[in-house]
Amino acid sequence: MKNKPFVMIGGGGHAAALAEILIKQKKRIVGVVSPELTAGNILFENIELFLNDDDILKFRPEDILLVNGIGSMPYKSLREDVYNRFKKLGYVFATVIADSALVSDYSTLECGVQIMNNCVVNLGCKVDENTIINTSTSIDHDCTIGAHCHLAPGTTLSGQVVIERNVHVATGVNVINNIIIGHNTIVGVGTNVTKSIPSNSIVYGERSVIKGLGITHDC
Amino acid sequence: MKNKPFVMIGGGGHAAALAEILIKQKKRIVGVVSPELTAGNILFENIELFLNDDDILKFRPEDILLVNGIGSMPYKSLREDVYNRFKKLGYVFATVIADSALVSDYSTLECGVQIMNNCVVNLGCKVDENTIINTSTSIDHDCTIGAHCHLAPGTTLSGQVVIERNVHVATGVNVINNIIIGHNTIVGVGTNVTKSIPSNSIVYGERSVIKGLGITHDC
Amino acid sequence: MKNKPFVMIGGGGHAAALAEILIKQKKRIVGVVSPELTAGNILFENIELFLNDDDILKFRPEDILLVNGIGSMPYKSLREDVYNRFKKLGYVFATVIADSALVSDYSTLECGVQIMNNCVVNLGCKVDENTIINTSTSIDHDCTIGAHCHLAPGTTLSGQVVIERNVHVATGVNVINNIIIGHNTIVGVGTNVTKSIPSNSIVYGERSVIKGLGITHDC
Repeated sequence: MKNKPFVMIGGGGHAAALAEILIKQKKRIVGVVSPELTAGNILFENIELFLNDDDILKFRPEDILLVNGIGSMPYKSLREDVYNRFKKLGYVFATVIADSALVSDYSTLECGVQIMNNCVVNLGCKVDENTIINTSTSIDHDCTIGAHCHLAPGTTLSGQVVIERNVHVATGVNVINNIIIGHNTIVGVGTNVTKSIPSNSIVYGERSVIKGLGITHDC
Repeated sequence: MKNKPFVMIGGGGHAAALAEILIKQKKRIVGVVSPELTAGNILFENIELFLNDDDILKFRPEDILLVNGIGSMPYKSLREDVYNRFKKLGYVFATVIADSALVSDYSTLECGVQIMNNCVVNLGCKVDENTIINTSTSIDHDCTIGAHCHLAPGTTLSGQVVIERNVHVATGVNVINNIIIGHNTIVGVGTNVTKSIPSNSIVYGERSVIKGLGITHDC
Repeated sequence: MKNKPFVMIGGGGHAAALAEILIKQKKRIVGVVSPELTAGNILFENIELFLNDDDILKFRPEDILLVNGIGSMPYKSLREDVYNRFKKLGYVFATVIADSALVSDYSTLECGVQIMNNCVVNLGCKVDENTIINTSTSIDHDCTIGAHCHLAPGTTLSGQVVIERNVHVATGVNVINNIIIGHNTIVGVGTNVTKSIPSNSIVYGERSVIKGLGITHDC
């Protein structure tokens, strides 16, 4: 099982970041599935390129592990749709943990969870399938995170936070202890979350102010 | 001295996080003192449970090191009270530094300081007794932090910041260079601190806005 | 080339932080150039002190690598001026990467770039000369950062961000994907950047509110 080769779905920045993590771990990637490569071309140059998702069907489910390299964006369901389609067909999505991340032995990650560089997942946490814990995110003890979420880079969760499924937490969000964020919610960049949020919400902080410096005028 | 066993005070999430750090370092925990265990039960399952603080008196001060596993919350003095009581009785509180943290050889930590996972403490810093530097907090050069403080997860201090005693810095706070934060102050989640703060203050940023997404209505 | 000794310019906190990183890497520092040492005195105590920038001329450019230990502050050009002066004279500024930082093999750093403790630079990034990536900053895939920038501690850049030359990004700033920040811009502490910013701008978030706690009045 552990020696199965990997097939990467997606050819953008998230796929490339995952590929670098896997290659460092001496994992073997035997295919990348994407209509085009827009990042990490050097990483993929000796790996066979498949242009259509249907090409995945050329591999038997028991022979490979899939890696969902499609990035997660608010209002876009492509990442989840691809996951669900191939899961139903019997394929298994690899759980990826970067060597530079720290995941407690007392936490559990479901299939397809991706823990990117420099993350912390402290003890007592549960992360459900196909969720991305992105670069330098810190998750404290006893948090529960649902399926198909994205915690963008630099997110900080205090202890005992619950994030339900399909939540998009944008870059640099801070969440205090014991908060519940309902499913299908979008938390905007750098929002400070100090109370629980109902499902299907959008939450954001104050907008920043842009002024001219008044020094030079060459822009 | 270095081989003394540890007795953990507290049975919640902070105690469990500390216990995991110590167990990774092959430290021996011979007792946990708490009316109940609310986190990390697996970690404590082979460790004797004591229900009352007075049970600590069964150990001689010279035989053990205490670990203050009581979490720090604003307006609550339990953590400090327990520390002071047992310090007066001659007990010593262990200084705990997670293996994943980076603490400069040119900084000093007093008794009972706890540096949790993935923290940085750069050179020239002083951290006084019983203070928690929580997960993924970054402290730059030449900062001075008083006793009984809590820097919650994801705090970032620039260089030469002074934080006096009994300050609670909530999750994700950012502090620029050369700031002084007076004692007994509470800095709210994600606050950006750009000027010095008098003692006995509460400081907070703008509140975030929550709206419905208008997509579905099942909440 | 790799065995050339280093000469540190500057005697404050940034110089000391760089010196600690280099000393850990067994690099040899043969001189520190500063009218006075204001930090890290222990680190420099066996290193010859030179009081004037002109003393650098006592070393031949081919014999040493310079390290720009002058901190970067908004509206101050000293760091850049010193870099340009000695570069024109044929000196080379060392690229410094802390052991605790993670820099992708698929990113490029120009001369004089400084990657401080606990930073991440993911794949596909380019960082131009004399730029500081300060403590615990996280830079995601495919970012481009110009010359003479300072990303202060705790900055988080999502993927594909472009920061032009001479930009000061203050502590704890968060930037979403695909943003362009024009040259000569200052981004204030903890700002959440959600749209591109013209050159020569100043950008900042809402100010925080300070109130008395109403508990004691000894400040």
